[in-house]
Amino acid sequence: MASRDASHLVGFFCDIPMVGSGYFGMLQMGIMTRCRKARCELVIKAFDLKDPDIPEQVHTLLERTPMLGVILTEPMCDMLDVKGLLAREGVPVVRIAPHTEDGDTYDICHDNLQAAVDMTNYLIGLGHKRIGFVKGPADHGDANARFAGFRKAMEDAGLPVLEELCADGNFEYSSGLIAGEKLLAVVPPPTAIFACNDEMAVAVLATAQRMGIKIPEELSLAGFDDAPLARTVWPELTTCRQKMELMGYLAADFLINPPTSREAHSRPQQHELVIRQSTARLKTSATDAAPVERSAVGRRAAN
Amino acid sequence: MASRDASHLVGFFCDIPMVGSGYFGMLQMGIMTRCRKARCELVIKAFDLKDPDIPEQVHTLLERTPMLGVILTEPMCDMLDVKGLLAREGVPVVRIAPHTEDGDTYDICHDNLQAAVDMTNYLIGLGHKRIGFVKGPADHGDANARFAGFRKAMEDAGLPVLEELCADGNFEYSSGLIAGEKLLAVVPPPTAIFACNDEMAVAVLATAQRMGIKIPEELSLAGFDDAPLARTVWPELTTCRQKMELMGYLAADFLINPPTSREAHSRPQQHELVIRQSTARLKTSATDAAPVERSAVGRRAAN
Repeated sequence: MASRDASHLVGFFCDIPMVGSGYFGMLQMGIMTRCRKARCELVIKAFDLKDPDIPEQVHTLLERTPMLGVILTEPMCDMLDVKGLLAREGVPVVRIAPHTEDGDTYDICHDNLQAAVDMTNYLIGLGHKRIGFVKGPADHGDANARFAGFRKAMEDAGLPVLEELCADGNFEYSSGLIAGEKLLAVVPPPTAIFACNDEMAVAVLATAQRMGIKIPEELSLAGFDDAPLARTVWPELTTCRQKMELMGYLAADFLINPPTSREAHSRPQQHELVIRQSTARLKTSATDAAPVERSAVGRRAAN
Repeated sequence: MASRDASHLVGFFCDIPMVGSGYFGMLQMGIMTRCRKARCELVIKAFDLKDPDIPEQVHTLLERTPMLGVILTEPMCDMLDVKGLLAREGVPVVRIAPHTEDGDTYDICHDNLQAAVDMTNYLIGLGHKRIGFVKGPADHGDANARFAGFRKAMEDAGLPVLEELCADGNFEYSSGLIAGEKLLAVVPPPTAIFACNDEMAVAVLATAQRMGIKIPEELSLAGFDDAPLARTVWPELTTCRQKMELMGYLAADFLINPPTSREAHSRPQQHELVIRQSTARLKTSATDAAPVERSAVGRRAAN
C-alpha cells in the first residue's frame, strides 16, 4: 500500500439515506472548501448499513485507495467494527457528532441533548404546554439525544410527555408528512410541534397549511439543523442551528493539519437557536399571537 | 501515471455554486448508485471558474489521481480548454446536458429549450397572457436555452415578451427572492411566473405568500428540475422534471460500461411536465380559478 502520508485523498463515509439531505450537503460543502485550500481531493462513499460486510468493504476501499484519513458521520462513527478496522489499518479518523467515547479519533462534538433542551424551553417560555415531538430514526444517536433533551425540558417544567403527541419519523420529509397528520388529528391538538430535523418540520408545515391551520397563529413549529430548507418556506422555520458547513471544514482540517496536543483532538461546536416566523406566543383569550422578534435567543457551547 | 484501465475512481467535476443544490444532489446520488454497483469510488471536485488556471488544476489532479473517466456538468462541459486537456490525456469524458457538439465525448442530452416551450405552452393553455420569467446565470447554457424556449412559445402564441416581466436570477434561492419582489411590484402584475429552476420558483412562492398573494388563485407558479424542494412547499410546485438521478446513473454507466457502437455515445433524456397545485386556470369574471388535476400533461423525447 502506498504511504498514507503521501496521499492527498480525504474520505467521507456516510450511509445511503443521508446523501441528498441538507445536513449532508452542508457538511460536504465545508469539507470541500478545506480540501480545495490544501489541494486535496474528496472521495465520497455511501454504504448500505444493511450490508453484513461493511468492514470488508472499507478494507477493500482503503487497499485500493490510500487516504489521508476518513471522516465518519452518525451512525457509522459509532460502529465499533468500522472504527476498529480503521485503527488497525492506521487510518486517521474524524468523527462528526459521535455518541461514544474513543480516545483514538478526532471528534467534532455537538451537544444534541442540550440543544433540544434549549429549543423545548424556548417553546415552553412562549406559553406552550401541549407540545408535540417528531422523532428521528430509532438507531440514530443524534435523534435519540434530541428526544431525550425534549423529555428532560418537559419534565423539568413539570409538563407531561404524552405518548399521543410523540410521532415516529426517520429524518425524511415523507415521514414528517405522516407524523404531521397523526399529531394534528389529536383532540385537542398540540399548540406547538418540535420536529427533530428541518426536513420533517417543513413537512409538518406543509401538512398544516394544507389543512388550513395558520402558522404561527394556531400552531408553532420548530425544527433542527438550520438546513437551507428552513429558509425556503413561508413562514421561515424557527430551528436550532448546527454550523454544519463549519463542522465539515473543521473535520477535514483535522486530517490536513492534525493538532499536536492530545487535548485538541476534540472540537466542541456551539449551537444556536434561530428564531424565525414559524413560532409565536401561545394565543390565549387575553393576548393575540404575534411572531416573536427575529433574533437568536440562545447560544451555548456544546460541552 | 498508473494505467487508467486499472483505475476504479470516477471523477465528478463541477463549479462551486452548484454544490449543495438539489440538481447537484440528485446527480450525485445517481452517480453514486452506479459506482456502488461496480465497486467504483467517486471523487468529487468543485472548481472556482474564476481561477485562471483550471486546466492546470485538472492536469495536476489527474496526474496524482488517475481516473476511469470524468463527468462534467454545465458550464465546464462546454469549456474547450478543459475538454481539450482531457482529450490529450486520454481521459474519457461524459458531459451532462452539453450545449456544444463534441465527437469525442459521451453525452447525456437534455432538450432544455423544448422543455421550456412545453411549460410555457401549458401556462398559455391555462389562459395566462402576462407571464413573468426568472432567468438563470447569463453564461449558463441550460439557463439560456430555457429562456429561449420561453420566448419562442410566447412569440409563437402571439404574446409579447415584456422586458419588465423578465427578471435576472442566478439559480440561487436568494436571487429568486429579489426577482419575485421585482415581478410582483409590476402594475398590473403577472398572472403567472415561470422560474427557470425550482429554487428560484420556491423563492417567488415565499415572496408571494409573504405579500398575501394567493397561490394558485391569484398567481400561477412554475419551476424547472423537479428537485426535492418542489415537493417540500405548499402548494407543491408545478415543474418540468429532469430525471437527474437517472442522468447521473447513466453518466457513470458510460465510464464503467462504455458502449461499443459510435451511435450509442449520446443518450437523449426525456423531460416531463409535472403538474401540481401551484398552477391554475386564469381567473376571469366568468370562471373561478381551480387547481388543474394533478397529472403529467406532457412528455417528450429530448431529441
